[in-house]
This record gives sequence, C-alpha cells and structure tokens, in this order.
Amino acid sequence: MTSSSAYQLPDGDSVFLAMETDVSKAHIGSLTLLDPSSSPDFSFAGFVDHVGKRLELVPRFTWKLKEVPLGFDNPYWVENPDFDYRKHIHRIAVPSPGSVQELAKLASYLHEQPLDRSRSLWELWFIEGVADGKCALYMKVHHCLMDGASGAGLSEVLADLTPDADRPMVVPEVYDEATPREPTSWELLRNGLRNDSNRRRALVGHLGRGLKEMALEALGQSEAPLVDEVPRVSFNGQLSKRRGLAYASLPLEKVKDLKKHFDVKVNDVVLAVVSSALRRYLRDRDELPEQPLVVMCPVSTRAADDAKLENQITQMSLPIATDEGDPIARLAEIHANSNRAKEEVKAGSFDILNAMGESLSPGLMSMLVGAADLAGDSGPLPGNFVVSNVRATPVPLYLAGARVDTLMPMSVLATGQGLNVTVVSYCDKIDIGLTVDPEMVPDAWHLAEYFPAALDELESAAEGVVHRAR
Amino acid sequence: MTSSSAYQLPDGDSVFLAMETDVSKAHIGSLTLLDPSSSPDFSFAGFVDHVGKRLELVPRFTWKLKEVPLGFDNPYWVENPDFDYRKHIHRIAVPSPGSVQELAKLASYLHEQPLDRSRSLWELWFIEGVADGKCALYMKVHHCLMDGASGAGLSEVLADLTPDADRPMVVPEVYDEATPREPTSWELLRNGLRNDSNRRRALVGHLGRGLKEMALEALGQSEAPLVDEVPRVSFNGQLSKRRGLAYASLPLEKVKDLKKHFDVKVNDVVLAVVSSALRRYLRDRDELPEQPLVVMCPVSTRAADDAKLENQITQMSLPIATDEGDPIARLAEIHANSNRAKEEVKAGSFDILNAMGESLSPGLMSMLVGAADLAGDSGPLPGNFVVSNVRATPVPLYLAGARVDTLMPMSVLATGQGLNVTVVSYCDKIDIGLTVDPEMVPDAWHLAEYFPAALDELESAAEGVVHRAR
Repeated sequence: MTSSSAYQLPDGDSVFLAMETDVSKAHIGSLTLLDPSSSPDFSFAGFVDHVGKRLELVPRFTWKLKEVPLGFDNPYWVENPDFDYRKHIHRIAVPSPGSVQELAKLASYLHEQPLDRSRSLWELWFIEGVADGKCALYMKVHHCLMDGASGAGLSEVLADLTPDADRPMVVPEVYDEATPREPTSWELLRNGLRNDSNRRRALVGHLGRGLKEMALEALGQSEAPLVDEVPRVSFNGQLSKRRGLAYASLPLEKVKDLKKHFDVKVNDVVLAVVSSALRRYLRDRDELPEQPLVVMCPVSTRAADDAKLENQITQMSLPIATDEGDPIARLAEIHANSNRAKEEVKAGSFDILNAMGESLSPGLMSMLVGAADLAGDSGPLPGNFVVSNVRATPVPLYLAGARVDTLMPMSVLATGQGLNVTVVSYCDKIDIGLTVDPEMVPDAWHLAEYFPAALDELESAAEGVVHRAR
Repeated sequence: MTSSSAYQLPDGDSVFLAMETDVSKAHIGSLTLLDPSSSPDFSFAGFVDHVGKRLELVPRFTWKLKEVPLGFDNPYWVENPDFDYRKHIHRIAVPSPGSVQELAKLASYLHEQPLDRSRSLWELWFIEGVADGKCALYMKVHHCLMDGASGAGLSEVLADLTPDADRPMVVPEVYDEATPREPTSWELLRNGLRNDSNRRRALVGHLGRGLKEMALEALGQSEAPLVDEVPRVSFNGQLSKRRGLAYASLPLEKVKDLKKHFDVKVNDVVLAVVSSALRRYLRDRDELPEQPLVVMCPVSTRAADDAKLENQITQMSLPIATDEGDPIARLAEIHANSNRAKEEVKAGSFDILNAMGESLSPGLMSMLVGAADLAGDSGPLPGNFVVSNVRATPVPLYLAGARVDTLMPMSVLATGQGLNVTVVSYCDKIDIGLTVDPEMVPDAWHLAEYFPAALDELESAAEGVVHRAR
C-alpha cells in the first residue's frame, strides 16, 4: 500500500456534482430484470452477501465526499469510517402482478430521489414480487463516482459470466486505490487559492473567445456548422422533479442485417430508429418541426489503454433528419452527419462542460445552472435530447446466481430536455431505456412502442430496395 | 361563492415551511394497516376513486404554494390549474411476507423524501403485499397545510364510520373555502414591505426581552423554572436525512384502569410508560443521566368552537422523572409536573416558534435553522424529544370500505432530537409510533418493546400497592 494522500475530484468529475439542481440530479440508474429460476438458493440475504464481498474490491464505493465551504473549490474524496454497505441496500416490492410497467413506475420514483451526499454515492434496491417468479434490481450511482466507459462501474463489479463465480469477470488494477487522506485546512486553503487563480485565468481565456463562439464550437466547430438551429418541441421545457421510465427492445440480429445491408454502423441504424419513432410521436401531436431534431451523443475521450476511473467524456451533436419522409434517405443522412460529427470530435471539439469545470468554481456553477433550469423554456438549446449508446455485452450475465434478463438503463435529464434515450445491447437484443420528465412526456410507453415499429419500417424499406434491384 | 382574494400563509403555518432544512422536513405521516376482508370489492382503483370524490370537498388540498423571492415574506396559497389527484396517489408493495417491520421500513424511506413544493403538499402511497391479506396506506401531509387538531386533516376526509359511507363523517364548514386569487406583483411588494416593517418591530421587542429570557420563558415562564437543565443523551445529536419507524401498542383498558387507580390523566399514564421505557433503554446503553429527561408536548391553543384550519399550537416542556427508580413515584412526579406545565400554558406561555415567525422573514429563518442543524450536537437543547398525543378515535374507521386496523403515526424530528413519540388511541388500543433518526436510534424496535413492558411494570406496582393496602 502506498502512503495515502488527499484526493481532490478533477473538474470532469466535480462538474456532475456542481450541475445538480433542485429539479435535476446527476446520478445514473438501471433497472435490471433477474431470472433466478436456475439458481434455487437465490435470496435477498445471499444477494446482500454477494454485494458485500464484491465491494471489498472497490475502495471508492466506500468513500464519501468532503465538500469545500461555499463551493469555492472541487470537493475531496475522503475515507468514511461509518461505511456499512448494508445501509445502501434496500429491499422493496412491486405491486402485483409486477409487470415491466409496474417496475418502471417504482424505479422512476426511486430515480427521482437524490443521493445523500453525506454518504457513499450509490444505492441498490432489490425488488421482489415481479411476475413469473422473477425479481429486479434498481441501481443508482452518482455520475461523479466514475466514467461508465472505464469498465469499473458498480454493475461490472457485481455481475458475473457464470452463476457461481466468486470473483468479478474483470478486476481492473485501478481498484487497488489507496484510501485518500482527509485534506488538512492548510491544503484546503492552498489548493482553493491555486485552483481559483487557475479558474480565473481559464475564464478569461474562454470569455475572450466569446460565449457564442464557444457554443457554436461546442456544437460543430466548423465554419458552416453541422447544427444550425435546434427547433423547440413539447419535451423541451422547464424540468420538474418527476421522472418516468419506458422500455423498448430491438432484436440485435435485425439491426445487424440492416447495418450490413446499408453498409452503415449499428449506431446509425439505432439513430434512424430513434429518428423515425420521434418523427411519428411528434406528428401524432401535430408538432413535427420543419427543421430536423438535434441529438446530443456522449462520446468517450478515453484512450483504449487508459483504465483511470475519472470521467472522460465529451458530447457530439448531430441532426437526425426527422424532416425527411423516406426511411432510407433518413438513414443515409444520419450516417453522413454521424461521420462528420465524429471527425469533428477527433479534431478536438470544444467541451463546454469541461470548460465550465475549468473556469468556474463549483458554487458559482451551481448558481448559473440553477438559473438556467428556471429559464428552461427560453434559453438556447444545445440539442433536443440525449441519445447515449453504452457498451455492449454479448454474453449472458449473472447477479448472485440469477440470470440477468433485461437491462433498462436510466439516465440524467439535462436542463430544458425532458427526454433521454439510453441504449445498451445485451445478448441478442438491444435494450432501450427512455428516461423522461412525465410532465413533458406523459405517454413514454406510447413513444417506446414506436421503436420496434420503426425498425420494421426500415426493414420493409430495405426489402423494397432489394426487390427493385432484382 | 364569495369573490376571491389573495391568501398569504399566517406566520404559524409559514414557520413549518421556513424551518425545513436539508436534513429535517416538516411533514407528518401515518402508516395505516387496512383489513379489506369484509369488503370484497376493495381495490386500488376503488381507493383512487374514493380519494378523488373526497378531495372535491377540500379545496386547499388542490392548491399550491407561491413563494416570495428570497424568502422575504410568507408564501401564498394559489390555485393549481394542473392539479390532478391521481398524480398524488402511488401504488407500491412491501417485500413478502409483509410484516409490520417490513412496512415500517418502506414507510421510513417514503417519510425521508421531501414533498415537492411545486405541487399540492400531500401524497398517498397504497401498499400491497401485506401479510394475512391486508394492505396498508402511507399518508404524507405538510404541516403547513393544516393544524392536526382542526379535525379537517386528510385522514378525517378519507375515513368513514361505516364501510359504505358516501360522505365523510364530518364536513366542517371551513372546507367551503373560496379559491384564492394569485397575488399581483403590487400586492407581493406592498404586503412584503408591511410585513417586513412589522417583523422588525416584533424583533426589536423580542430582542429587548433578551434571548436567554425568551428561551427560559419558553421552557417554563416561572421564576424557578420547571425545566432547569436538559441532559444530553445519545439521540440528541446532529440529524441525518434518514428516518426510521417502530410501533408499540398498549391495551386502552389497562391504561384506563391505572388512570382510575391512581386518579391521574390518561396522558400521565402514557408519559409514565414513555419514561420507564426510555429509562430502561438508556440504562441498557449505560447512559442514563442523573437529571431527568425533558419531553416537549405540543398543545393546541385552539378554542373549542374554532374550526379554522390554520396551525394553533404551542409547546409545553416537562421533566419525566427518568431519575426516579420507583414506578409509582415516577407517575406521581409526572402528574405533578404535567399539571404545573398545563397551568403555565394556560397563563400564556411564550411560543418561541410563533415569536420566530412574527419577527423573522422566512428566508432569514431558514438560514438560522440550517445553521442550528449543523450545530445540532452543541447548541442548547429545549428538550430531549417530543411526545405528541393526538386525538382519540374510539370507534372503528373505514377507508374506501376496508377497516382500519392500526394507526402508526410518524412525525417531524426537530434539530438535535433523533426521537419523536406520537401517540393516538384507536378503538381499544393506544397506538404509538416512534419516529427516529436511525443513525442515533439504531434499535427503535427494541425500544418499542419496552413500552408494553413498562405498562406491565406499572400494573404490578399498582397491584403491590393494592396488595399492601388490603
């Protein structure tokens, strides 16, 4: 063990704390459906034991935050002598018959509640009473804790490739972190002054380039920007505290066939499905805008051999051709836009979140973000909603012996955006979680139904092309 | 219908909003066990309908708050055009077997979460999966909404004396409130300035009498105060956000026999039981103080014919003789202290909460209360915990057809107090809810077990006296 030192959160992690407001919290969640039928000994007590054993491997899940007075500087990770993993695991049930809809309602309520910052920043909810002898797990982890792409998230530590594994599938070396030491008052002061002076310098730099230019660069960084104007639709308004979850599933095989057929990426097919579903949803409501909707896609900036746990994420924005009536033309346009946006990210796009973290103290950022929330229906809109594609897991996973059936990801809603679409491929299907503000998207399950329908539409269109080509 | 006017919350109601901090929320709750066995049509849908029909009778349950910027003045009640009672009713379940302990865990979690101030300030949680075919209801109502003693609370509107009633048992005239009008900017400003100038005047008055004198008066208002010094025990510390609930029940008959036997009040017997249970709990933990614990009892200042919904409550503090080893001597001392404290309340005790409401703006009060929370383990302590005795209901109640089995009240934890004991007599038993901060009282169910034991102890002691007297 190395001698411990104080551990101040880097700007990229701290920004997820500073951006939290009364209505918008920066934790991610997932609702996982478990099938314990092949594991007769599966029980709540066994699950708790399993979590306890695995947590010993990941020191940072036991730490807590030490915040700096008035948000003058980024918080520190410190040891938590009172830590007891059992206090973070709850047992609850879903009303009978325990359908996916009932589960989603319960998970939505749990997702609405903020994590308690005086504790370690994660929670597990073991949910009983699910139909067909299944059970479920709702997981909540603060986004500041680690970058999803680091491969060392809570779910990775808990899940196994076999029902009876006694170690996680991968034990990254980075788990071996030394427990940080509590910073002394002198360190708090010295670091605070140093960081404040760096922030002032960065702020001057950022302001010098002009805020409008910053925003434009963040969106496209080209002379004729990829994203011109973001139209405003019914789910772009002032956020409430409420959250809702709906779920859709696509057969992976079908998506892969279409990818091959059109020679595009899997992500392009997914975005085309998203576009088609949103197009239909907005047409139903008589509010399909003339300009295409713009989605924001988080992109990992992590190098392949970088196993650090800190957040390394940027955003790319791209229009998804909702103004185009023909499914194939829509896919082609999305493919082209997506290639262009990726080139721009590679060329080094401007990361507005990181720029904020670099140039504003957490306290000042909180105030600005809070003000933006209140102006959620009038400020400029960087995109209509987020589409996030997280890592694929091609083989079945097990949790304390029970097989993982379905992954329903839940995410963060950003200011002015009442919809988030998070996609994860698991085994032979693509699981899609729609996190919504039900005040703006009251019929999320209805929207979810359009996803498989959109895939069918694309398939029919492809067959039409093949047919004509014969 | 009278022409509507703006409705600003009186100080006594507004104080329950201003005193809320990050860790302490001012809503009251109750967990009710329901037995639907005699009502075959009982269902969630029927319950929702029942609530909808009853709510039509109580306009203020549909209103929401309009807060004044920066907490400069008390908020206003305004109409809520988006109100939908169905958004306030949730369906959830308890993990099987659904014991009272499992129910209490679920209710504790629900009790921890604040009410959303952008909505009407109540929630209902319909809980399925309870053992023996029962179900349960958790109710949450903000204390600013109405005084419990007004007889017009949410539970009174929902509950019936027969399974098939189509009106509540009492429909107080005050339900007939006109919908308040949204205050104009001019009214906000004018009222704010007027109230601010009144507050400054009141503050000067209160400060003139001296803060220490104020506190002493609040505690006793006599030259040799009833309460001298409040000892500090393990549940008097800094509050966390966590809440726990435990429940105890006493046979009413036994309590009444003892009341007659010793010629005291029912409340004196209850306080003697509380005292004995706490004495044993603290002795177990090797921390029974030499000075007696002091409890704070809310007292209604409402005149018998006053049906207004506003809060009209003051506090009386009394020592409960935990330093006395003999159960009968303990009861006698409590009886004497209780009589003396009641005389003092009648003579017009100083109400520190009202004094704060009269002399500080809500924003300033929030800041002061928040600071007190952080100093929860060092500031002066007005009492060790609250014992609240709410109205008795001697006959069975029904909710949408299901018989109410048990009432488990949950309450507010005040700064520095990790325990609240709320007592309600229902049919032939006395239901006692212990609301705790589990960080300070990790074994609330253990403490709850001492309540019936304490009653037995008192009974044995009484028999001893009878025996000796024979």
